Amino acid sequence: MEHGGDLTLAIERFGGTQDGWLDLSTGINPHSYPIPKDISSNAWSSLPAKVAEERLISAARQVYHVPEKLGLVAAPGTQLLLSLLPLILPEGPVALTSPTYTSHKTAWTREGRAPVELSSIYALPADAKVVLLVNPNNPDGQLVDVKSLLEIAQTLTARGGYLVIDEAFADVVPGASLLPHITDENVLVLRSFGKFFGLAGLRLGFLAAPNTVTKRVSDLLESWCLSGPALEIGTKALRDESWQDQMTRQLIEEMADLTVLLSERELSVFGGTPLYALAGLRNAKGLHEALARRHIWTRIFDYAPTWIRFGLPGSPENFERLSEALADAKKEL
Amino acid sequence: MEHGGDLTLAIERFGGTQDGWLDLSTGINPHSYPIPKDISSNAWSSLPAKVAEERLISAARQVYHVPEKLGLVAAPGTQLLLSLLPLILPEGPVALTSPTYTSHKTAWTREGRAPVELSSIYALPADAKVVLLVNPNNPDGQLVDVKSLLEIAQTLTARGGYLVIDEAFADVVPGASLLPHITDENVLVLRSFGKFFGLAGLRLGFLAAPNTVTKRVSDLLESWCLSGPALEIGTKALRDESWQDQMTRQLIEEMADLTVLLSERELSVFGGTPLYALAGLRNAKGLHEALARRHIWTRIFDYAPTWIRFGLPGSPENFERLSEALADAKKEL
Repeated sequence: MEHGGDLTLAIERFGGTQDGWLDLSTGINPHSYPIPKDISSNAWSSLPAKVAEERLISAARQVYHVPEKLGLVAAPGTQLLLSLLPLILPEGPVALTSPTYTSHKTAWTREGRAPVELSSIYALPADAKVVLLVNPNNPDGQLVDVKSLLEIAQTLTARGGYLVIDEAFADVVPGASLLPHITDENVLVLRSFGKFFGLAGLRLGFLAAPNTVTKRVSDLLESWCLSGPALEIGTKALRDESWQDQMTRQLIEEMADLTVLLSERELSVFGGTPLYALAGLRNAKGLHEALARRHIWTRIFDYAPTWIRFGLPGSPENFERLSEALADAKKEL
Repeated sequence: MEHGGDLTLAIERFGGTQDGWLDLSTGINPHSYPIPKDISSNAWSSLPAKVAEERLISAARQVYHVPEKLGLVAAPGTQLLLSLLPLILPEGPVALTSPTYTSHKTAWTREGRAPVELSSIYALPADAKVVLLVNPNNPDGQLVDVKSLLEIAQTLTARGGYLVIDEAFADVVPGASLLPHITDENVLVLRSFGKFFGLAGLRLGFLAAPNTVTKRVSDLLESWCLSGPALEIGTKALRDESWQDQMTRQLIEEMADLTVLLSERELSVFGGTPLYALAGLRNAKGLHEALARRHIWTRIFDYAPTWIRFGLPGSPENFERLSEALADAKKEL
């Protein structure tokens, strides 16, 4: 499974060093939430206290608007959470809107429950017991509205089924999250901490779901799955709503600038979120490699040879570098 | 499930603040491996690179003497690893030497595979498919020798079964580990990073096992389960063999001092490892509470009303404090 965000392969093929590359292959916010200088030595040395986990959960509950009725569980990344779901959710046919982030399909297929791939969530198979959706979608940013999602959730709940929504990028798309609207529906929502807060290395993610599901996940994860620093930094960042508000605005502005830059280089952006732009051109692989020769790493997709995804460059210098590299690279295509 | 290492309960019942308490309720080394001042900002912000995980695994392989034939997988703590085992190991009766660290029993019971409890590993049930053992044992420090373990492993392997050894405290008992001696036996070995290195908050643990088992665990954990700082600090600490050698000697000396101190207070130590001492007295709960009123937290055991466990105090001041508190507390019994 190929993912963005690991430069090892890029360096092997195209040379250079970690520091010399501009990594635009992920949708991780380049402006990380500042790591506190004063992480307590206890956070490293002691077993995390239950109360520290409770504080984190309570902060997350508030920021993500998780209804009281739902359970909420934290884990070292949503990647782990999504891989446990096939062991936990009831038997029966699984469907997944596609194309999307590949890990969902991988996890379910591995457990012998290969999902049917749907081109649209509205084409809901009559027998589906579990339906998976990334919303907004990665990489194309497609967004299914809250009202439609609720209806789908109700249909599935009526047949004892579940709707699983991966809201990894919902932080930067205000109004996208289904969480505040869930009442009695069987909905599971995955939330990623690392992408919006720019701290993917911290490993922190959440699952909001009916209590029976979160209880089962908590049991499997046992206590102490989260590092002391993740608890401490995560709680602080989730409580810092002024940073979140300011950052949401900033990312929207930077994405507007990136969209202009790409279109000036004759790349039309046809999808994305404020954390990544999906552009199309005849030979995406050619451009990807030409940029890689300039040590700029982008993301392309096996299943769509005309797609190329760009994360935010993060600084005026990096914008400039991308702009020049694109002008240069296009001459080679 | 009650564990040591969480002062929340102690503070609720006996007052005081985190900093005011002396926590002797765990077997975690009080002399933590020093946290590097220069954790790279990448470690926090980026998805951990595959190569960083490979470096960690390679360092662990060397320190723990994992035979090449065995797989080795890292996780955010052995707690998570042990809770996944009941989902992974073949069906059939499970046996566990008892009393021991309670999480094993809890994890297997939760999955409907409640273990038979053995008073000794030598009383191996003829039908057992999975046998679990903590070696050296917690809390009594009982050690089963390598030769016996190999024979038991061979017996189990011959019937398609598995021997699971939790070597959480093997670092401080040279020669205790079965790892260097495993060839074709179906043995799983859990290794804890946080206890010996005094970094329980980092969340890091390992499982060495036949490749089919570690592959299954890796798949379930997906990539990226470990935080960037855990990868960086873990690798550095595991490579630092001079720190490890010096620390092993130091802990043995400190435990000798603690044993003398306890016996001077008429507490006879009848088990343990260099990271914890198990002492016996008629009214362990009374002493536990009398010490708690002096804000010293020890560990007692539901199943053994005469047992009390002490971790290392960690400094001359803390030794002195424990010594005086014991003298005082005994007057109240």
